[in-house]
Amino acid sequence: MGCFIYCLLGTSKDVTLGPTAIMSLLVSSYAFHEPALAVLLTFLSGCIQLVMGLLQLGFILDFISHPVIKGFTSAAAVTIGFNQVKTLLGLHNIPQQFVLQVYYTFCRINETRAGDAILGVSCLTVLMVLQQMKKGIPRTHLLEVLPVRISRHIIWITATARNALVVLFAGLVAYAFQMTGSQPFSLTGTIPQGLPPLQPPPFSIIVSNHTLYFGEMVQAIGPGLAVVPLMGLLETVAIAKAFASQNNYQIDPNQELLAMGFTNLLGSFVSSYPVTGSFGRTAVNAQTGVCTPAGGLITGALVLLSLAYLTSLFYYIPKAALAAVIICAVAPMFDARIFRTLWQVKRLDLVPLCVTFFLCFWEVQYGIIAGVMVSGILLLYPVARPRIKVVMDEAIVIKPENGLQFPAIEFLRNIVHKQALSEPQQRSVILDCSHISSIDYTVVLGLSELLQEFQHQELRFIFTGLQAHVLEVLLAADLEGFRNFSTLNDAEKGLGELHIAIGGMLGDNSSVLTTTGIIQ
Amino acid sequence: MGCFIYCLLGTSKDVTLGPTAIMSLLVSSYAFHEPALAVLLTFLSGCIQLVMGLLQLGFILDFISHPVIKGFTSAAAVTIGFNQVKTLLGLHNIPQQFVLQVYYTFCRINETRAGDAILGVSCLTVLMVLQQMKKGIPRTHLLEVLPVRISRHIIWITATARNALVVLFAGLVAYAFQMTGSQPFSLTGTIPQGLPPLQPPPFSIIVSNHTLYFGEMVQAIGPGLAVVPLMGLLETVAIAKAFASQNNYQIDPNQELLAMGFTNLLGSFVSSYPVTGSFGRTAVNAQTGVCTPAGGLITGALVLLSLAYLTSLFYYIPKAALAAVIICAVAPMFDARIFRTLWQVKRLDLVPLCVTFFLCFWEVQYGIIAGVMVSGILLLYPVARPRIKVVMDEAIVIKPENGLQFPAIEFLRNIVHKQALSEPQQRSVILDCSHISSIDYTVVLGLSELLQEFQHQELRFIFTGLQAHVLEVLLAADLEGFRNFSTLNDAEKGLGELHIAIGGMLGDNSSVLTTTGIIQ
Repeated sequence: MGCFIYCLLGTSKDVTLGPTAIMSLLVSSYAFHEPALAVLLTFLSGCIQLVMGLLQLGFILDFISHPVIKGFTSAAAVTIGFNQVKTLLGLHNIPQQFVLQVYYTFCRINETRAGDAILGVSCLTVLMVLQQMKKGIPRTHLLEVLPVRISRHIIWITATARNALVVLFAGLVAYAFQMTGSQPFSLTGTIPQGLPPLQPPPFSIIVSNHTLYFGEMVQAIGPGLAVVPLMGLLETVAIAKAFASQNNYQIDPNQELLAMGFTNLLGSFVSSYPVTGSFGRTAVNAQTGVCTPAGGLITGALVLLSLAYLTSLFYYIPKAALAAVIICAVAPMFDARIFRTLWQVKRLDLVPLCVTFFLCFWEVQYGIIAGVMVSGILLLYPVARPRIKVVMDEAIVIKPENGLQFPAIEFLRNIVHKQALSEPQQRSVILDCSHISSIDYTVVLGLSELLQEFQHQELRFIFTGLQAHVLEVLLAADLEGFRNFSTLNDAEKGLGELHIAIGGMLGDNSSVLTTTGIIQ
Repeated sequence: MGCFIYCLLGTSKDVTLGPTAIMSLLVSSYAFHEPALAVLLTFLSGCIQLVMGLLQLGFILDFISHPVIKGFTSAAAVTIGFNQVKTLLGLHNIPQQFVLQVYYTFCRINETRAGDAILGVSCLTVLMVLQQMKKGIPRTHLLEVLPVRISRHIIWITATARNALVVLFAGLVAYAFQMTGSQPFSLTGTIPQGLPPLQPPPFSIIVSNHTLYFGEMVQAIGPGLAVVPLMGLLETVAIAKAFASQNNYQIDPNQELLAMGFTNLLGSFVSSYPVTGSFGRTAVNAQTGVCTPAGGLITGALVLLSLAYLTSLFYYIPKAALAAVIICAVAPMFDARIFRTLWQVKRLDLVPLCVTFFLCFWEVQYGIIAGVMVSGILLLYPVARPRIKVVMDEAIVIKPENGLQFPAIEFLRNIVHKQALSEPQQRSVILDCSHISSIDYTVVLGLSELLQEFQHQELRFIFTGLQAHVLEVLLAADLEGFRNFSTLNDAEKGLGELHIAIGGMLGDNSSVLTTTGIIQ
């Protein structure tokens, strides 16, 4: 379903949707190993992704920065690549967790099966040589003689179809050995045959003689309804962006949402569980030289054909050959230079890169989420701690230079307290708002509290340079003692007059400042 | 431990730390009902919070906006208050989940126990009257006669000590009934006596004849090590901020982190599980009229004294009286006016308010997290979609007006594509960077890809107005075809010259643009 729908709606030529390790883990924890719940989760995830796509919420994915993607793809290349080393060497009983995998692979290296290792390394060598050859083939010139041009064409075809050829050849070798009676390779073996039935997703199930209705099923899935659609999206877009930047094209996150949503929605009619972009298969797709999303049609048709009729042919494919294809496909995605580049260009970006890279070895989803959070913090720090210019004059002029949003209001209050309200230099303050283009309620409240504190200490707090809609918000809030002048000069003049007025009135202990005055 | 340490390190006079419902649920899911794991989690959470406090990471908490806090406190007031209604009426077997609780409380209203209901409603009435009286007491004047002043003092003391007096009086009534042999009230009953032993937290445990070492224990707790310290912090600071804004004081999030960290660290030595600010107890504390954090000393001393000696005295306290005290304490935290205020002042802020308010009825932690995420999205939207001015001249001048950070680069590229690179109006572009104060690697990469596309179409992409450290980053990235002019005028002049140069050279199909030229 992923192949057929993505080729119509997707925006990346390389991405292939399908079941992945991460999604399998997530689904198993939210669907409690109950297939009906998993299929319903697919259906609902699809609906949620479709709605997000229609609401144009794809902009959320702009928050996955390039260092996060590089960290994720480099770590995924290492883990997926290394995961195949055990198959390449014919090792058994190696745990899945990366650190343990590395440890046990080296521990049991002496258990290597000679047949698998020889075949695997040969395939790997052939693939690497062909890969290099393809890069090195010069353009055909019309001046060359025919035999040269034909041989160049043959090399080009061999190099382009190298993955298929290597697997085919290895399969033939294994078949030949099988005929002689001995089998030195680990084979793919029997694959269950047949296609799933076409039926609507289950909206009620019977569990141990008790019917679970739609509402209860949804309640059972719970937070999975938020986690599964978002993680699926995150993984797909991270992969799509990685291959897009390597191959110089752009993707549209909203369109990706629609593609994933439709795939899951329709997938639930063939008992699929939620799908997402698969790093390994996408890499093989890209390395095989796919040129348009229509490649998905061929992949999909082959998968259907294989499930229905061809599984017996796959029996003889040696696992080591497949491992070699995968290693060759993911290896180019490991980018060691990015560490040096970031060191030279922008060192701060090494933080999200390293966080993502190292956490991805623990769990890919934690790596991506932590990376996005770290780049989010780097992004938001200037919002929470904006530049604020303080000019000491007769009054103190305080000017936020890049807007003032709620995370910065406590910071502003602390500055005002330190500069104006604390002993011994108690002074009036002019807040220059000319660079504030919007204001939220938390800021309004903070300013109102500041106004009160100034009134309490019989000092003045005056606004200047307010933009029209900011002024509107402040007027609507009806702050006590709010005073506004259009320019800094007017404010300073106004402050002087106010000073005299208050000076004359302080004697009788009543305060002129409690009136709400707006002067423009 | 919370009482004693918070009074030294905390910055809110009202907050009381202790076990809460939310934290209990979180701990039970990460510690698998194994007390040793819970105590270790307390220790590690304390360490993590301490380190966060020392690293001054408290600024993260500035991202809890006022609408989120109001949504949380209003919802908490409703749920905690309503949770006591069943106790006030003496109802039994009411489920904990809020919606079900409301439903079953009304279903079983006819099972109300007369004694509990009469006592509860009487206590509630007395408390409410005393609360109003305290607000209404005028200042003592020296001119008044002594009896008036004395009676006014008595009223003031009664109104101030109303919570203690009501509980004491209700306890005496219940004791009197007990003496007569009948008991119309539900009583607090037996409380287990004794203090926990002082011992270090367990760094290894024996589970079913197998020793679990520190590393394995940490692995078992897993993501709890991130969730528990953060949720504890979030809840404490949300409560502290709510009471701070109601009582006009300010809190320091870094100091709160240190206070919580130390409390958990030392708490793990008395077998505590992770503590956090408790909404109900903090509200009772505030309503009882606590004036300084030293109130914690008295609370703590009373708790210790009670656990060691006084539990038998608490036997006769009717539950309905305690329920009345709690309802009176949390009721003022429900703020219906905030909805109207936000509608008048800033309607956009209603979104985080409503999201937080309604989700808090489901699960408080989801409510707060969703509210913070929604206000984060509102905050980040302008970062992802900044204002970009486009001036159509001979070349197109594109000027980001509020900086350019990684979430905006795809947006910028789309604008450039639409305005300059798409048929039929293919034109050169001048990027005016005078308002860009910093640049990250994702932006550099996006600009480099744009440069390549322009070179490919034989159009020019020129930078102007770069600030010194932005220029530095771009130079370090060594972009192909990068050209920079200090002013817009120079850039337009430079573009003209380049135009002529290229115009003369286009004939021989070589491109002058592939050289890296930096002109300043």
